[in-house]
Amino acid sequence: MTQTAPAPLLRVLAGETLNSPPIWFMRQAGRYLPEYRALRARAPDFIAFCHNSEMAAEATLQPLRRFPFDAAIVFADILLIPGALGQKVWFEAGEGPRLGELPSLDAMAAEIDASTGRLANIGKTLSLVKAQLAPDKTLIGFAGAPWTVGSYMIEGGSSDRSRARTYAYEHPAAMDRLMDILSESTARYLAMQADSGAEVLKLFESWAEGLPEDLFERLVIRPHRMIVQRLKELGVTAPVIGFPRGAAAYAERYAAEVDVAAVALDTAAPAGLGQRLQKTHAIQGALDPLLLRAGGPGLERRVDELLAQWGGGRYIFNLGHGILPDTPIAHVEQVLKQVTGR
Amino acid sequence: MTQTAPAPLLRVLAGETLNSPPIWFMRQAGRYLPEYRALRARAPDFIAFCHNSEMAAEATLQPLRRFPFDAAIVFADILLIPGALGQKVWFEAGEGPRLGELPSLDAMAAEIDASTGRLANIGKTLSLVKAQLAPDKTLIGFAGAPWTVGSYMIEGGSSDRSRARTYAYEHPAAMDRLMDILSESTARYLAMQADSGAEVLKLFESWAEGLPEDLFERLVIRPHRMIVQRLKELGVTAPVIGFPRGAAAYAERYAAEVDVAAVALDTAAPAGLGQRLQKTHAIQGALDPLLLRAGGPGLERRVDELLAQWGGGRYIFNLGHGILPDTPIAHVEQVLKQVTGR
Repeated sequence: MTQTAPAPLLRVLAGETLNSPPIWFMRQAGRYLPEYRALRARAPDFIAFCHNSEMAAEATLQPLRRFPFDAAIVFADILLIPGALGQKVWFEAGEGPRLGELPSLDAMAAEIDASTGRLANIGKTLSLVKAQLAPDKTLIGFAGAPWTVGSYMIEGGSSDRSRARTYAYEHPAAMDRLMDILSESTARYLAMQADSGAEVLKLFESWAEGLPEDLFERLVIRPHRMIVQRLKELGVTAPVIGFPRGAAAYAERYAAEVDVAAVALDTAAPAGLGQRLQKTHAIQGALDPLLLRAGGPGLERRVDELLAQWGGGRYIFNLGHGILPDTPIAHVEQVLKQVTGR
Repeated sequence: MTQTAPAPLLRVLAGETLNSPPIWFMRQAGRYLPEYRALRARAPDFIAFCHNSEMAAEATLQPLRRFPFDAAIVFADILLIPGALGQKVWFEAGEGPRLGELPSLDAMAAEIDASTGRLANIGKTLSLVKAQLAPDKTLIGFAGAPWTVGSYMIEGGSSDRSRARTYAYEHPAAMDRLMDILSESTARYLAMQADSGAEVLKLFESWAEGLPEDLFERLVIRPHRMIVQRLKELGVTAPVIGFPRGAAAYAERYAAEVDVAAVALDTAAPAGLGQRLQKTHAIQGALDPLLLRAGGPGLERRVDELLAQWGGGRYIFNLGHGILPDTPIAHVEQVLKQVTGR
């Protein structure tokens, strides 16, 4: 392969401002694509689908075949780690995830070493994708962050996380240890993904909303710092994108205290916040998936607005949350054309 | 009655910093109190209970008989306005609110004049409470803010508000007009409450989370400004507490652009945000109701922390969200003792 310039996404994460921001969408591999639905129909069990490297690699690559996205993100799920640590995880059709009884902390701690090996299929997915990816495209690995994953583990499924937050109050030592166990297993999982070809790592704190500052420190900042620190100790140089969703008011503190290359912003991020963050970090976001689905002149106007407010700094165009299953493909095409000019 | 110093809550709203902050709790009149449950059992229909001035006044006063709270907040519901505008509203036992078909905008606009009269019982509740309230206690009136109330009206009940947000994108003119109708009826309702004895008015934007900045401007800032402006035109001098819940990242913009005396903060408010707001406004909040329910040394520590971080400025102690029904009364007593020293 001839030497090529770094891919646009990597350039922005390294500190550059590009004339046209790189773009990818959360859940760009997903149900809004008919080819994804066809693929997924062949593997009814969702966890098995994630562990099927050939199928997951195909799902990862599908959006890149159709759209000029700048990145592929490995097809996987944030709840693979609980499974690897010994908690049963399954998906009921048409409902959210379900999790079995939470193993003891000692039992999970004893599984950390083995857990990464149990996720080897995801490494294989990354290798398969990497081999097929054009050099100007960036491969992203990811994991759910400890609080988000831990809250599913404690609650046994989707929830308002009030039981998990109560657990943090009533059993602080146990909660901190759960965060430690998840931080260590997550760091090793992400390191394995980097070893398998992931050039960027994204940490999804999907449910950071509503946390008081003391809990945000204990459940988000501290575990994220541990993960980033452990990645360094494990020799990983891939830049990290942190996504503390629903916590825009803490984003500047997060950026100052966790050594991430970029902060992903959700739909509710003020323009000024992003601009302040851009002085020290790349930012990513934050088009409303509901507006992408709705389309129309409001969508075009809002994309222009995002480009105007953040395009002058280090910026990765993305949604503020995952693309919705019933999003018209024409709307995705329209935004890509508007952002890339292609 | 002899001349007395203004009540502590009013002093803070007028700009004073007190040695010990005034304190009240959202939903302080509610199911965690056995005397409330006994009262409520006599009126199975919740909307009828809100419209029964004698019962609602009794519910309003119950927490003041038991605890040294500095304020009483009229017992009512944010969904009384849709009912007054002609949309059917009812509560199913054990579930959330239900709303019938949304009337046409023209039909609702034609009902604005009449809507305030249909809420006269709430004015009567306030008069009854006022007559029994000690002069050092403050009587608070309130209303749900247009976006929050409008989202229930569009969705037909509790939801993630995605249909309402989509409506704002797909039917911007209709949505803006709905906000106008609700702003006008809300302003008149609040003015009637002030005329009936409310000394402070609180505007509950309970569901401000997740809004992109353009929608936050259209659906929160603009309607709140209209309400505050109309209150002035109607001769109301009672200070307004604005509560854009879930939108801490927009709180400073909100405070700068809406002429409120105080900004109420939810559980996820950083210490520094509150301190910046205190330079120009009183702030209120933001103890986690889950921590109040959990109790223990963590609760005591957190109350100390809130007092330390915000007690040096204009501060009204409160929760970041409503008190939970299964909160032990002893925990409420403990916090009141800690905050008031009484």
